Amino acid sequence: MSSTSGRLFRVTTFGESHGVGVGCIVDGCPPRLELDVAAVQADLDRRRPGQSRLVTQRQEADRVEILSGVAMEEEGDAVTLGTPIAMLVRNADQRPGAYGHMSDVYRPSHADYTYDAKYGVQAASGGGRASARETVGRVAAAGIARQLLAQGAGIEVLGWVSSVGDITAEVDPDRVTLADVEAGPTRCPDPEAAARIEAAINAARRDGDSLGGAVTCVARGVPAGLGDPVFDKLDATLATACMSLPAAKGFEVGSGFAGTTMTGRTHNDPFVPGADGRPDVAANRSGGIQGGISNGAPVICRVAFKPTATIGSVQDTVNRGNEAVKLAAKGRHDPCVLPRAVPLVEAAMLLCLADAWLAQRAVDVL
Amino acid sequence: MSSTSGRLFRVTTFGESHGVGVGCIVDGCPPRLELDVAAVQADLDRRRPGQSRLVTQRQEADRVEILSGVAMEEEGDAVTLGTPIAMLVRNADQRPGAYGHMSDVYRPSHADYTYDAKYGVQAASGGGRASARETVGRVAAAGIARQLLAQGAGIEVLGWVSSVGDITAEVDPDRVTLADVEAGPTRCPDPEAAARIEAAINAARRDGDSLGGAVTCVARGVPAGLGDPVFDKLDATLATACMSLPAAKGFEVGSGFAGTTMTGRTHNDPFVPGADGRPDVAANRSGGIQGGISNGAPVICRVAFKPTATIGSVQDTVNRGNEAVKLAAKGRHDPCVLPRAVPLVEAAMLLCLADAWLAQRAVDVL
Amino acid sequence: MSSTSGRLFRVTTFGESHGVGVGCIVDGCPPRLELDVAAVQADLDRRRPGQSRLVTQRQEADRVEILSGVAMEEEGDAVTLGTPIAMLVRNADQRPGAYGHMSDVYRPSHADYTYDAKYGVQAASGGGRASARETVGRVAAAGIARQLLAQGAGIEVLGWVSSVGDITAEVDPDRVTLADVEAGPTRCPDPEAAARIEAAINAARRDGDSLGGAVTCVARGVPAGLGDPVFDKLDATLATACMSLPAAKGFEVGSGFAGTTMTGRTHNDPFVPGADGRPDVAANRSGGIQGGISNGAPVICRVAFKPTATIGSVQDTVNRGNEAVKLAAKGRHDPCVLPRAVPLVEAAMLLCLADAWLAQRAVDVL
Amino acid sequence: MSSTSGRLFRVTTFGESHGVGVGCIVDGCPPRLELDVAAVQADLDRRRPGQSRLVTQRQEADRVEILSGVAMEEEGDAVTLGTPIAMLVRNADQRPGAYGHMSDVYRPSHADYTYDAKYGVQAASGGGRASARETVGRVAAAGIARQLLAQGAGIEVLGWVSSVGDITAEVDPDRVTLADVEAGPTRCPDPEAAARIEAAINAARRDGDSLGGAVTCVARGVPAGLGDPVFDKLDATLATACMSLPAAKGFEVGSGFAGTTMTGRTHNDPFVPGADGRPDVAANRSGGIQGGISNGAPVICRVAFKPTATIGSVQDTVNRGNEAVKLAAKGRHDPCVLPRAVPLVEAAMLLCLADAWLAQRAVDVL
Repeated sequence: MSSTSGRLFRVTTFGESHGVGVGCIVDGCPPRLELDVAAVQADLDRRRPGQSRLVTQRQEADRVEILSGVAMEEEGDAVTLGTPIAMLVRNADQRPGAYGHMSDVYRPSHADYTYDAKYGVQAASGGGRASARETVGRVAAAGIARQLLAQGAGIEVLGWVSSVGDITAEVDPDRVTLADVEAGPTRCPDPEAAARIEAAINAARRDGDSLGGAVTCVARGVPAGLGDPVFDKLDATLATACMSLPAAKGFEVGSGFAGTTMTGRTHNDPFVPGADGRPDVAANRSGGIQGGISNGAPVICRVAFKPTATIGSVQDTVNRGNEAVKLAAKGRHDPCVLPRAVPLVEAAMLLCLADAWLAQRAVDVL
Repeated sequence: MSSTSGRLFRVTTFGESHGVGVGCIVDGCPPRLELDVAAVQADLDRRRPGQSRLVTQRQEADRVEILSGVAMEEEGDAVTLGTPIAMLVRNADQRPGAYGHMSDVYRPSHADYTYDAKYGVQAASGGGRASARETVGRVAAAGIARQLLAQGAGIEVLGWVSSVGDITAEVDPDRVTLADVEAGPTRCPDPEAAARIEAAINAARRDGDSLGGAVTCVARGVPAGLGDPVFDKLDATLATACMSLPAAKGFEVGSGFAGTTMTGRTHNDPFVPGADGRPDVAANRSGGIQGGISNGAPVICRVAFKPTATIGSVQDTVNRGNEAVKLAAKGRHDPCVLPRAVPLVEAAMLLCLADAWLAQRAVDVL
Repeated sequence: MSSTSGRLFRVTTFGESHGVGVGCIVDGCPPRLELDVAAVQADLDRRRPGQSRLVTQRQEADRVEILSGVAMEEEGDAVTLGTPIAMLVRNADQRPGAYGHMSDVYRPSHADYTYDAKYGVQAASGGGRASARETVGRVAAAGIARQLLAQGAGIEVLGWVSSVGDITAEVDPDRVTLADVEAGPTRCPDPEAAARIEAAINAARRDGDSLGGAVTCVARGVPAGLGDPVFDKLDATLATACMSLPAAKGFEVGSGFAGTTMTGRTHNDPFVPGADGRPDVAANRSGGIQGGISNGAPVICRVAFKPTATIGSVQDTVNRGNEAVKLAAKGRHDPCVLPRAVPLVEAAMLLCLADAWLAQRAVDVL
Repeated sequence: MSSTSGRLFRVTTFGESHGVGVGCIVDGCPPRLELDVAAVQADLDRRRPGQSRLVTQRQEADRVEILSGVAMEEEGDAVTLGTPIAMLVRNADQRPGAYGHMSDVYRPSHADYTYDAKYGVQAASGGGRASARETVGRVAAAGIARQLLAQGAGIEVLGWVSSVGDITAEVDPDRVTLADVEAGPTRCPDPEAAARIEAAINAARRDGDSLGGAVTCVARGVPAGLGDPVFDKLDATLATACMSLPAAKGFEVGSGFAGTTMTGRTHNDPFVPGADGRPDVAANRSGGIQGGISNGAPVICRVAFKPTATIGSVQDTVNRGNEAVKLAAKGRHDPCVLPRAVPLVEAAMLLCLADAWLAQRAVDVL
């Protein structure tokens, strides 16, 4: 435990890269949602490895199979039944005989050692659930949440790469579109920054090194009133969802760490009369959340991802016998996870919002 | 909902500043803990407002009353029974007749508007549960967690002010002591930075402005293996606990956002043979957590707090009728919450660790 | 753990008879409920011991204090804020110095031994949380649930004593009223049976013996659709709520155990066209629940309570040293808990229904 | 929601009979459990329909596929990894095109109407999750719990048919064995009663009628101290687990409803000095549980199952348009679910005990 997240839109994920498959159960998805299964698959395709160019290169791998909870109406059309939706994506290269043959070397900044310390059993791939492959289940679940939020509440969630190394993008969170994000392989919608990021990633690959960066994510159309005080503050649930992503090291909402160097006079969000009879904020330094509850402005957060731990250099480490050893350089590796992290951050935000939106239905009853 | 946190060491808080009192129930504290009630009170005293100098100025306010779950042995000595520990701190200045008389002006960057949007009922003090007074319950609960972790696992948690505005402290997380932190009113253990912070806070007070900053917190003595994969990763639960604190805008663990500008080659934590037969890390850029599980190194996180929203200037805002109004300057305010935020971040970490430590007892059973 | 019940209408209780007090936190009660505090107190008064005649004999003991979550409007009127409602009832005869002085004899059919086996610490009153005093918190919480269900859904819950020993009452669950139940000290609304029960209880008291029996409880006005498949079936949540009551040994819904001796042909509930355009049931052997979900008919359950374990005879038992000892006869005891169990069973049903009713609001959203 | 059960040994089930398959995720199973996959399959085989004689007639249907959480060592041997164990059993006769073609007639005493009232969407098979097919997931999960309890705690769980209609078996819960239970198709270990039950079932089948009955289940080797006060009392969690089974209408522990007609003097469980230095009970009318906590004696419960709702007679009912209609007689049906209910009740008890046993590890820590 615990592989379950959410109170009402509840997601439980399973699977590791060396097993039969990965997936999830979504419990609490409302009935009568018109579900576009192809759109769920498209969300999954965005997180797949091996995409040098996006969208176009769809391979047949990572096909989601919906096991329960929906009724298929006609070709491609489905409707949710209100019952648990189980989804399975089989692993292409599972090797059931691989157990016991893993290296006993703890890779630096990986979870090999901590999984061993915790579980005392050596699975085929070290920190199995720490693998990015676990996120398949979350992205599939979020593909359903995305459709629920769009149909039920008119909420749209969109993420992008906002920095890689010290290259920072200029993006208007109120206007950026999915097409902007998906225009290039970096998922950075600032073309000038995108070009520099692409070059930096290629250089890191050639050098056997790796890069980190940040993903920014916005939810537009969020009604005021979502999120609960104290432990289920909307920013608190967003934080745990984002920090549970592989390689995440930091989270901020609105002005975040930069806001700590402002003063109250410049940082405060003045309210102004809104066109719909409800207050607007002039600036949105609160990131759409005040006291843990949405205020109707776009919800904005940013997540830091460390440089990929797998690199093309020899590294010092120890083995299970606590002996100093050398870890050989890896020939091929993914030098920067940022582009693939975009759908993961979106998934985190989608799942939080779906849960908060449903929870508010049980608050506003009298 | 949800005012409950934790799976095994479960804390439920209650109360707002305009009611009778605040407090909590701790459910799941193991039996037979020798409980020093005075130490719980001392933790509460650290979060109280109105301390110009620390420790010395104990007023009789905010006295915790333990309602259940412990047996008193002799004067001051108590033992936990394994049953829920309820604690109550009465509000000194409750005004039960105040309902209906609050201003209908939404204070900028406060939770007045969002609480109104969520609940549609106007309580005396706007965003009642968003008030810092709610944290009394958490700090009281954490006072118990602190003793459990010390007695049961030898874990020590210590926080300090690491920055205010653009003033940053130099602190060695492996060696800093409680005495260092409590040496001055800023709770910044770097004397040179502390002096500048004190001056900056005084200047902000005179100017009717306010300042933000960051608290860093370390847990030393954490055994390897705490934290669970996926949604209960130790850093994910720390993130939600910290981001649920009033005024928190960002969270990071280990290298955090700064790590995003490093490369994998410089960022990775090389393992080295440890003296106890288990691997150590040469650097601790992972902040003691890898794959969401503790690795035996000190767990380190940092939390960003925005500048206090209450300031001594006239501000533009709107009222409940969506009309533009002026909000008068506040005569007295707390220009910087950072010193008082230290025990809150410690409380967040203590509650997470108590829960994770208990959870591991139910993992390591065969 | 776990002293918390419910998913949306969440109740956490605390306290034991030897401590300062007992009570609860209700988290998730919707805002804007007009709360009649006197009615909550009246529910509590019904469960109090020492009532030889009901209603009239109100002592000042067991006064509930609401600590948070409501705003008082005028004398006696209150409105819920949506935030946690904490309630406290102080123990009149707490003896904080009593620790360590309890007898080391395990009373038969009490929880002294099991608490000792579980917790290994000897509290003043043996199985403290197994005491009926714990139910104060539940009854107080249910007093709020009762008003929520009445105002929000038109649901009414009513229980009565349906048997004591081998005396069984004839009661029409569709027509029985609160006045019928409260007409006499037995809370049995069948006057003929009530007279026999009263005589039997008096005889048992004189004889130093005790009696068991059953409480039946009905909820009228429950809309179809409440309850969730599988682990949150309405009858399953009712079962756990009822079986968590002190001295409860059995639970049944609808035809219950008696239905096992019928055949399908006679047991089935034929549907008939209902006046409101929805199907009715001709019989209600399902007890208002089919597949775990309410069908619009009255929900009916029955709970078995064992004879009071405290009796006026010398009993054989053992002490903490595993030595055979005699337990002296108790001079005064309550020879039959059934009348006081009525509000407890009502509380169980009220809390279940409040939770299920709120949960359905988060299902029926598209 | 909620298809999840348990706090530490957490089981989430999915699937309905008209979908692709059924199964579960077990989250929180400790690592390093030597898992006999064939034994899990054998547990599943016991719940399968179509067994006229037990054990022998294994068809290839209902084969469980373990998708994650275990490492296969050699042929048939497996070890748990501590990560979620997902299991899938495909439906043999899924008809994805069947949606929309179901009858619009509400079958009496089935969940067709209540599912429609709750979800407002017409799935292929009416109350899909109310189908006995959902229990595949629970039985698979319990197959793992059984091995955990055996290896970790020496606990054994065994159920049997204790009554069908008015035929009641005489069984010694301390001595009955699995071989006794599986000796005949009725799963009633009292040969004389078994013969009468078999005849009664055959008669009901010929008559187009159906029978109900009760299953008794015992757990032997349960250490004292399992179960938690109040809402997680061991009997309360057993009650919800059992009452969540299809067709369950009643639950009792120990003396149950029969105990209500005894007096305290005859009902109480006198303690006697135990051979192991801990108290024994002379009688076990508490059913191994006192104050919600196990006392070391065998835990015994009994569950009532109503007569099968599907019968071979024409029945009166209504359709979705609230019109009176006749429901045709069903040609073939299962006239008594009791023999197949035995592994379901065992599963309920196994899951409760696994959870309670793990929870106690997090209590007994100081």
